[in-house]
Amino acid sequence: MNYFSSNFKLGILGGGQLGKMLLNCTRKFDIHTCILDASNEAPCKIASNEFYLGDLMDYNTVYNFGKQVDVLTIEIENVNVDALETLEKENVKVYPSSKTLRAIQNKATQKLFYVDNNLPTAPFTRFAYTSEINDAIENGGLTLPFVWKCAQFGYDGTGVKIVRTLSDLKGLPNVECIAETLVPFKNELAVIVARNASGETKTFPVVEMEFHPEANQVEYVICPARIDDDVAKKATEVALNVSKAFNHVGLLAVEMFQTESDDILINEVAPRPHNSGHQTIEASYTSQFEQHLRAILNLPLGRTDSKVGGVMVNLVGAEGYTGNVVYENIDDIMKMEGVTPHIYGKKQTRPFRKMGHVTIVNEDLSKARKVAEKVKKTIKVISK
Amino acid sequence: MNYFSSNFKLGILGGGQLGKMLLNCTRKFDIHTCILDASNEAPCKIASNEFYLGDLMDYNTVYNFGKQVDVLTIEIENVNVDALETLEKENVKVYPSSKTLRAIQNKATQKLFYVDNNLPTAPFTRFAYTSEINDAIENGGLTLPFVWKCAQFGYDGTGVKIVRTLSDLKGLPNVECIAETLVPFKNELAVIVARNASGETKTFPVVEMEFHPEANQVEYVICPARIDDDVAKKATEVALNVSKAFNHVGLLAVEMFQTESDDILINEVAPRPHNSGHQTIEASYTSQFEQHLRAILNLPLGRTDSKVGGVMVNLVGAEGYTGNVVYENIDDIMKMEGVTPHIYGKKQTRPFRKMGHVTIVNEDLSKARKVAEKVKKTIKVISK
Repeated sequence: MNYFSSNFKLGILGGGQLGKMLLNCTRKFDIHTCILDASNEAPCKIASNEFYLGDLMDYNTVYNFGKQVDVLTIEIENVNVDALETLEKENVKVYPSSKTLRAIQNKATQKLFYVDNNLPTAPFTRFAYTSEINDAIENGGLTLPFVWKCAQFGYDGTGVKIVRTLSDLKGLPNVECIAETLVPFKNELAVIVARNASGETKTFPVVEMEFHPEANQVEYVICPARIDDDVAKKATEVALNVSKAFNHVGLLAVEMFQTESDDILINEVAPRPHNSGHQTIEASYTSQFEQHLRAILNLPLGRTDSKVGGVMVNLVGAEGYTGNVVYENIDDIMKMEGVTPHIYGKKQTRPFRKMGHVTIVNEDLSKARKVAEKVKKTIKVISK
Repeated sequence: MNYFSSNFKLGILGGGQLGKMLLNCTRKFDIHTCILDASNEAPCKIASNEFYLGDLMDYNTVYNFGKQVDVLTIEIENVNVDALETLEKENVKVYPSSKTLRAIQNKATQKLFYVDNNLPTAPFTRFAYTSEINDAIENGGLTLPFVWKCAQFGYDGTGVKIVRTLSDLKGLPNVECIAETLVPFKNELAVIVARNASGETKTFPVVEMEFHPEANQVEYVICPARIDDDVAKKATEVALNVSKAFNHVGLLAVEMFQTESDDILINEVAPRPHNSGHQTIEASYTSQFEQHLRAILNLPLGRTDSKVGGVMVNLVGAEGYTGNVVYENIDDIMKMEGVTPHIYGKKQTRPFRKMGHVTIVNEDLSKARKVAEKVKKTIKVISK
């Protein structure tokens, strides 16, 4: 199929910032796009060819939307997978597949997938309800501390809590969840694997993530990770094995822990462009968004190495501010060397909401890291 | 003014490929954009916030469009300058200014501007009509060969002809024109100067242009130019002097000749993003489009040096094909190292029409140049 001419339609489920950055690449290639999102203020409302308002979890809405496109992809995992399964049977190309999404949407299922496929991950126990955890501790079936994770609909750190004492369990929702062994680690790493329908596979360099201690959101992404080559090699191998096991098409972002003993444990995966790959827009020969597009359209994959070192800083809503967003001191950060702000176009801010990100590139990664800290201290995402 | 929040509006006159690439940056910064273009199929129809159909040469259309925006810029010079002048008086920020545009729109006036400002350019004679040229030759006031250039509305090589014999004059339109001394040159060079309203000025590296012999359109742009440092320095100085003379805000692309004796002569200028700067999207720390936006919004200018070497190939319609465009072998060029196609989204091709461009980047410029030749030989812009 000739994607670079009319008739072909690409559907994207979700119209948030990932969709928006993906649309920039579809515009570059002049690909006809259709977006489905529940919000009339979605960042993807402009720059798409067709925008549809609708519930991503509703079977009929997703089915009817998907039926009109040739290739269907996602920018968020929480979509109606049954509809995707029907669409696949009716020959719509769905990347990631309903099978991959089903395995990933539920964290308990995702963890079981790793175990079944001999992929390294921290030990865990699945619970149908959070309320069952107390019994398990009393019976000696579970020991403190552990990481509680709700099985479904967790996003950007919501639905994750470190439980050190029984009182930490109070206030947690009584839902399906897992209790994961708390493994001390040196670094959180991520590798984005790209695979097209023909099976061509490429990996982006291993990145290092620094998390905000409170919000459990990525604060800095550093590319390449400042780790030994053998650790990078091991992390890349693990990521490739995960990708192979899922037999996925598109991008697969694999988040991993580097333990104290330099073992690699899979934390979780996302079958789409990912926060850990935003710096590729400025730093890499091919951005993760272009690579996702190349992969799902079965085009040859682009170079994944970096032109320069890159650091990404998330712009999240400051604590104490909810309302119409204002980006304070943005002129000041634009004076700094190698700084590019990305503003997602969300009108309302609230504490820790992802409102944008800033990429800092430099031929010297340590310089970029220093500028990133200055950026972080200077810019404020507040409300007026 | 806080550009990164609502209320602010940026107006762009023209909705072609330059506007389209500029829109990609406005999306990144979440700047509200309004586009005016005469075609309902303009590439900018999507990705702008507001799109208006209308004649760019009509006073009332341009005035009414401009009246609603805070900053007004262009992506094509052929616009109604009287309307811009009125808008300036009514405190709309117009970049480039009506004064600059008036000096540039007419090639005779542009050349006189260089003479008046002691800027180096090839000698020339102005004629009110092409028909006057024969007399001048007979009188000995003009000698063959020379370059005939129509004074107004020339674009992409139309309106330029090398006149070696009297018969070459036949068929030329009988319009205001100039006859310019044919200066033998080694290279055609270009420098893009960026200047913001506060006066901060930066230049992109000197690029080298290879022209298609027949269509007189740029075939390859090579960044950086493969010239001696002192020539590059001289070209940059001339470009800065032109910029200073115009006192312009935004981008000014200065096209120059490097003569056999390594003198620099100004060919012509464009006060906007330019074909000679497309490779900056992939090769430079800051793309020319982001830089134009930074300049006209009076934001700090970004780094203009290159991350890697870059070569740009124009994708123009193949001879013998007019109609619905097809990009043949695009998959093959995407297999090549460091290749990014940009498809402008024009539905109809015709011989030599600019339909897109391809950027090839590599840490080794000579490798990029080789790949560019392969790209040129492989891809075909035809009709079905």
